[in-house]
Amino acid sequence: MIFIESITNSVPWVNSLALTLNSPLLATTNEAENAPIVLTGVLLTLVVIYLASKIGGELSRLVDLPPVLGELVAGVLVGASALHLVVFPESGAVAGDSVIMTILQFINNLTPDAVTAIFQSQSEAVSVLAELGVIILLFEIGLESDLKELQKVGYQATIVACVGVAVPFTAGTVGLISIFHAPVIPAIFAGAALTATSIGITSKVLSELGQLKSREGQIIVGAAVIDDILGIIVLAVVASLAKTGEVDVLNVIYLIVSATVFLIGSILLGKYFNQSFVAIANKLQTRGNLIIPAFIFAFFMAFLGNAIHLEAILGAFAAGLVLDETDKRKELDEQVKPIADILVPIFFVTVGAKVDLSVLNPVVPGNREGLIIATFLIVVAIIGKIVTGWAVFGQPGINRLAVGVGMIPRGEVGLVFAGIGSASGALDKPLQAAIIIMVILTTFLAPPLLRFAFKQSEEIKELEKADLLG
Amino acid sequence: MIFIESITNSVPWVNSLALTLNSPLLATTNEAENAPIVLTGVLLTLVVIYLASKIGGELSRLVDLPPVLGELVAGVLVGASALHLVVFPESGAVAGDSVIMTILQFINNLTPDAVTAIFQSQSEAVSVLAELGVIILLFEIGLESDLKELQKVGYQATIVACVGVAVPFTAGTVGLISIFHAPVIPAIFAGAALTATSIGITSKVLSELGQLKSREGQIIVGAAVIDDILGIIVLAVVASLAKTGEVDVLNVIYLIVSATVFLIGSILLGKYFNQSFVAIANKLQTRGNLIIPAFIFAFFMAFLGNAIHLEAILGAFAAGLVLDETDKRKELDEQVKPIADILVPIFFVTVGAKVDLSVLNPVVPGNREGLIIATFLIVVAIIGKIVTGWAVFGQPGINRLAVGVGMIPRGEVGLVFAGIGSASGALDKPLQAAIIIMVILTTFLAPPLLRFAFKQSEEIKELEKADLLG
Repeated sequence: MIFIESITNSVPWVNSLALTLNSPLLATTNEAENAPIVLTGVLLTLVVIYLASKIGGELSRLVDLPPVLGELVAGVLVGASALHLVVFPESGAVAGDSVIMTILQFINNLTPDAVTAIFQSQSEAVSVLAELGVIILLFEIGLESDLKELQKVGYQATIVACVGVAVPFTAGTVGLISIFHAPVIPAIFAGAALTATSIGITSKVLSELGQLKSREGQIIVGAAVIDDILGIIVLAVVASLAKTGEVDVLNVIYLIVSATVFLIGSILLGKYFNQSFVAIANKLQTRGNLIIPAFIFAFFMAFLGNAIHLEAILGAFAAGLVLDETDKRKELDEQVKPIADILVPIFFVTVGAKVDLSVLNPVVPGNREGLIIATFLIVVAIIGKIVTGWAVFGQPGINRLAVGVGMIPRGEVGLVFAGIGSASGALDKPLQAAIIIMVILTTFLAPPLLRFAFKQSEEIKELEKADLLG
Repeated sequence: MIFIESITNSVPWVNSLALTLNSPLLATTNEAENAPIVLTGVLLTLVVIYLASKIGGELSRLVDLPPVLGELVAGVLVGASALHLVVFPESGAVAGDSVIMTILQFINNLTPDAVTAIFQSQSEAVSVLAELGVIILLFEIGLESDLKELQKVGYQATIVACVGVAVPFTAGTVGLISIFHAPVIPAIFAGAALTATSIGITSKVLSELGQLKSREGQIIVGAAVIDDILGIIVLAVVASLAKTGEVDVLNVIYLIVSATVFLIGSILLGKYFNQSFVAIANKLQTRGNLIIPAFIFAFFMAFLGNAIHLEAILGAFAAGLVLDETDKRKELDEQVKPIADILVPIFFVTVGAKVDLSVLNPVVPGNREGLIIATFLIVVAIIGKIVTGWAVFGQPGINRLAVGVGMIPRGEVGLVFAGIGSASGALDKPLQAAIIIMVILTTFLAPPLLRFAFKQSEEIKELEKADLLG
């Protein structure tokens, strides 16, 4: 405080400066003063999230499960259910619940008011990073979904996908309303979460089994891609319903039409845009000449998706599908990868962290209903996808069980539903926890079930062979 | 509102749901409801920032100037000085000043309260992204600074760097205090901003002139690297002074010692850590096996830097220096590049956007003092670096002017000072604008001046040759 009193002449910066320097109490509630502490909190949270994602992912891989499952479970561990390192005000946590905030308070000698403000800002920043993560995840999935390959698999995959969306959605929604007397919107949201199929997990297991190019494998992967497209349309419609809170038939029709038109329209218009995109990227000479135009397109489409009251991820997915058709695809894929590597785990871990699994603790009697609902969702999730195998027609001798089982894992797409459902406020804690448990179990069960289904068919084939030879 | 009234039995989700669905007015002030709109705002802001950075960068390149200059000027154009697309509450803007907020308000029919809350959250999220951008920028600069190469250039570079830090810092700070009666902390901050030298810009121009491996080029690049290290220490010390608001000699000594110990300590400890880092990265098998451990390290170091009341970027820079010494350096460089490509422009553009150049509008008489200060800073910035050429000793025939001129451009490092100065509240608007103008002009002048300086020396050499031959 050497100079504060001595300067009273009209040097323009004294006023604004005095505000920050005069009193330490004033300074801690000041926005500009808090900014570096918010950053400290974000950095520490990211370190925890990255550690959790890597440890969880690697352990998961060691026991031959998909890494995303480990990231999710690690998120549950560091989050509201256990360690309270990564917690969010939306799920009812206050600054005092957060271990990271306690550390910051200790380091910086903060007032309770300052801690609350910093906790709020830090949580919002991490949430935005997680949302950018899911946008980039869907952009990447779009980039990897080859529309031309899809046309070859044709009708079979489309029918399997449609059955795999219709059956679990109807059974889940109707069951929740009629058996459990759930309100319409949460029931529709939970039903929608049952429709997803994870391309990533299924295709990884199929390739391990050497079945990726088999008839069954082709149908499963094709159906999973179509399922993604249908699922994102369903999600956009359902999330929009949750925002208005009304289920109006006209509105539902409008939403389905607008989501479909948005997606198909951007793919069709994209064919023309493609050429200009490549031309622009080729002309640019400064750093980021490919990735920045791609992100401008992806973020603008995501903005449009949000602006027309659908979902940002729908736009990002459409942008991915469009740019997938360009010559720059491979180069773009490579550059998006590290960006996805650092942003996508933030999404998976925070989805896990936001879930409070204690609401499903079976020891507490009040949780019984939530547990029953979780069990119901899991049963519908499995049966609703297994039946899709019997929707295949004109393919004698196909392994119907393998096709159905291949559609079971919800994986990252199911998590997108859970994440957006909780962000939009449509899902309460028990239902959100039930969906997460459903995603974990279906993803967990799919690899062994798929191995079993294909093994059985091989044994049958071998028996048939033996019969023929004998 | 079909079902709200009809359900009164104790289904657990009804209460929380009613909150979001009951009243549209309540819904717009609700955090969970605002979240997608905050995201919409962030996405639109990022689209504007990326467009500005690419257009500015490319135009700059077309007229043979460093792209970072174009990004900065584009930031000024989209920011508080002109278009009001990207504005921030810290610089005194309210939601109504932001064109993006006006668009969001139009799309979503928001109440004034909701707009204010969304503006606040959106600006904080973009600021955190910009801060992550500068952290990654310094991490990348650290990765590119080869400590072994540096040892070869040795004493010459060190002396040039020290003179290039001491002269502008002393002349700037003392001048601001004695001539302009500026308070001590802002004067020190502005003096510190004069010390930076941009490695990137200088080495690019040198390589274009074919002088990167010349004696002059080696000294300039070496001095620029050391200058970075000194500059970051100075910045950490000055920013910490700005936080407490007191200039206490003991505290200054403590800060200089702790910043130096932190940097040198982490480099020394890093030699042991290096091996473990490579071993860990080699063992990991899931996606992001290299980049996630690197980011855990960089963000943890940045957190430490902040936690010990220095700067996050000091930690990130140290992390980059450490990981630069590993075998993974090249692979890591490649993966960090696209991440830097999408995050660093957010920093440069927002630094420009936060500046209000109207405070230096020469038509307004009240701005005269600010303009005089800006002119003073520019003169000190240029002369203070040119004199460094005459600090070179034992190198007969060296082009002293070229060495001095090579140290002039402040570039990205000067912007880091301006950005952190404005975030910490140490710089008021006129001083911040004056620093930005100084950075722009020095960066703008360096390439032509450097060409001139080398051309002159070649002409002299040729004359000498002609004399010898003749």
